[in-house]
Amino acid sequence: MNTATGSNGHELLCARAYLSAVAEPPAPALHGFIAGCGAETAAERIRRGDVPTAVADETDARRAHVCGAELLDRAHRLGIRLVTPEDPDWPDHRTATMEGATEVGLSGLVAPIALWCRGTGSPAAVLRGAVAVVGTRAASGYGEACAAELGHELARSGVTVVSGAAYGIDGAAHRGALAADGTTSAVLACGPEIDYPAGHARLIARIAENGLVCSEYPPGTPPRKHRFLVRNRLIAAMSDGTVVVEAGIRSGASNTAATADTLGRPVMALPGPVTSVSSAGCHELIRSGKAVLVTGTEDVLEAVAELGSVPATGREVPRRRTDGLDGASKRVHDSLRPRAYRTVEQLAHETGIPWKTVLSCLSALEMSGLASCADRGWTRCGQ
Amino acid sequence: MNTATGSNGHELLCARAYLSAVAEPPAPALHGFIAGCGAETAAERIRRGDVPTAVADETDARRAHVCGAELLDRAHRLGIRLVTPEDPDWPDHRTATMEGATEVGLSGLVAPIALWCRGTGSPAAVLRGAVAVVGTRAASGYGEACAAELGHELARSGVTVVSGAAYGIDGAAHRGALAADGTTSAVLACGPEIDYPAGHARLIARIAENGLVCSEYPPGTPPRKHRFLVRNRLIAAMSDGTVVVEAGIRSGASNTAATADTLGRPVMALPGPVTSVSSAGCHELIRSGKAVLVTGTEDVLEAVAELGSVPATGREVPRRRTDGLDGASKRVHDSLRPRAYRTVEQLAHETGIPWKTVLSCLSALEMSGLASCADRGWTRCGQ
Repeated sequence: MNTATGSNGHELLCARAYLSAVAEPPAPALHGFIAGCGAETAAERIRRGDVPTAVADETDARRAHVCGAELLDRAHRLGIRLVTPEDPDWPDHRTATMEGATEVGLSGLVAPIALWCRGTGSPAAVLRGAVAVVGTRAASGYGEACAAELGHELARSGVTVVSGAAYGIDGAAHRGALAADGTTSAVLACGPEIDYPAGHARLIARIAENGLVCSEYPPGTPPRKHRFLVRNRLIAAMSDGTVVVEAGIRSGASNTAATADTLGRPVMALPGPVTSVSSAGCHELIRSGKAVLVTGTEDVLEAVAELGSVPATGREVPRRRTDGLDGASKRVHDSLRPRAYRTVEQLAHETGIPWKTVLSCLSALEMSGLASCADRGWTRCGQ
Repeated sequence: MNTATGSNGHELLCARAYLSAVAEPPAPALHGFIAGCGAETAAERIRRGDVPTAVADETDARRAHVCGAELLDRAHRLGIRLVTPEDPDWPDHRTATMEGATEVGLSGLVAPIALWCRGTGSPAAVLRGAVAVVGTRAASGYGEACAAELGHELARSGVTVVSGAAYGIDGAAHRGALAADGTTSAVLACGPEIDYPAGHARLIARIAENGLVCSEYPPGTPPRKHRFLVRNRLIAAMSDGTVVVEAGIRSGASNTAATADTLGRPVMALPGPVTSVSSAGCHELIRSGKAVLVTGTEDVLEAVAELGSVPATGREVPRRRTDGLDGASKRVHDSLRPRAYRTVEQLAHETGIPWKTVLSCLSALEMSGLASCADRGWTRCGQ
């Protein structure tokens, strides 16, 4: 199972397993307590009831009912591995920001105590360059198509697509990444062995095979409403940026976006028809300045690249043959006709430009192949 | 015709008519020259060729070919009235900002020398509270529906809908306003008697009947490409704010939006599907921070109200019965089931919350009608 935690690795793992189950995340007091005395001591003292009140409040309800070794056995049987902060596979670069946020008092952003992982993927490796693609379960066909396209293109660019395995946008994003033979990761709001939603059992299995299914909840934890909100902070924290594809006005996706913003990660939202309720949350995020508008993968990579990730691709602006012309030459060109001859005097009167200037404009236009001169006058070419 | 310009009114009108035709707008040097010596003197000196070089450059090509009195006669026969800055119907509150912009060197924003008006509407009155609704001629069905809806709702709110009478978004916005029996104004890029585009002849006639069709171009001026760009600055200047409904990446609408921004007026853009090229310009305006995203009339009125116009209507956020609950009570509520009994101890273990806290949460939930207590335990009610 876990091989990189030294001689007393199993005790430490048992302690982390116990700690990850003894309190309902996020448990800021417990987190601080572990940071102070180490995981093994923390676990022992909690078992004895020898802890500060704040830690007791978070742990008393479960401290006598949880056993780390049993949890590890159960996980092992389910093909689940516990990755702890002491493990080289721990996504340090992701949790470091959360530690920072906790230190300044943002207790809702407390880092996970450990990650229960289904599949063989290393969280550190899978989450190296990652973008969260999230949104409503009640997605429209448009939203699902956009999420799938985004998932596909991001994965093709070598970016891991992180989402929550839910119906709608989440599922479409994961599927898009899988279709590109890319890496995708699902962060669950329940034990990682639980297929939630049940209809996504096959999808979740495919994500575990090709990427990573993980959770801060130990095996056996059922999904509950508040756990989705708590989980959402992890989706944001595990990614370089979060894209909301479709969301209602009050939604979990907006909540993920808010966390990403607090962590200093780009928050992006995809617009849609104003007539679609599924896009209302995205529009609100953009309107309020909480998210930047993105129209596709190029925009997303550009936003994320500012953090030092993938370089953004150059953007092409359509060019016209008349683009290099000065204002007077453009006006003269406008007044020329392809099949009617104009004299310099006519053009001067029509455009209001002095005839000498008209003449120099005409020779410039002729050299660019935009005007042509004949005995009876000037005609337009091109454009 | 014009009654409010005093005893020498006709001379002044003739001078303004001449000046409005002698240079191709915008003519910043001419504008400054008129401001310095008055319209009548300016007209005389231009006719004689007694002007600074910059003014000569703008006026020489036409100064001998234009006659103000003839233009006024022609306009009169066409049912067109010349409104000048000396007229009480002049939209002072609109042009004042343009004068300011010209003073700081933004020559492209120079105010019109006069307005040729079709219909009986007073520019000052019609343009008192106005919003420009603009966009691409190559509009989608979605874009036209949004423009019509916006035009309709703005007009119903007593706001004049300003646009350019073009096919696509412009036409839909005008039509929406007319359908609401509201006021709408078309600013043309040609003489105001010209039905351009020809297919909108009936629409333009209806706009003139119910609102105002105006132009800074004298009768007989044909539409030319550059005149649309020049005209666009007037659409922006004559409105409290500009909404771009649909636009391609390079478009006249973006140009109108840029002018509105320079004049310190709100620029707004309506999003659409990212798969639609007709919305690409809107998305780019929002992305680059040049426009705020609006989803409908309420958003538009809110943006415009910041300038002291119509007060914005209150926005309703959907409420849930559990909204007032603290985090612990929400977690307890999540763990309750409608048709399964739970003991306090079970709930404490499941939620990780101390049982004493669980108990006080349960009584609060019971009082709110969200939990119910029976002999065998607690069940969920509501939500």
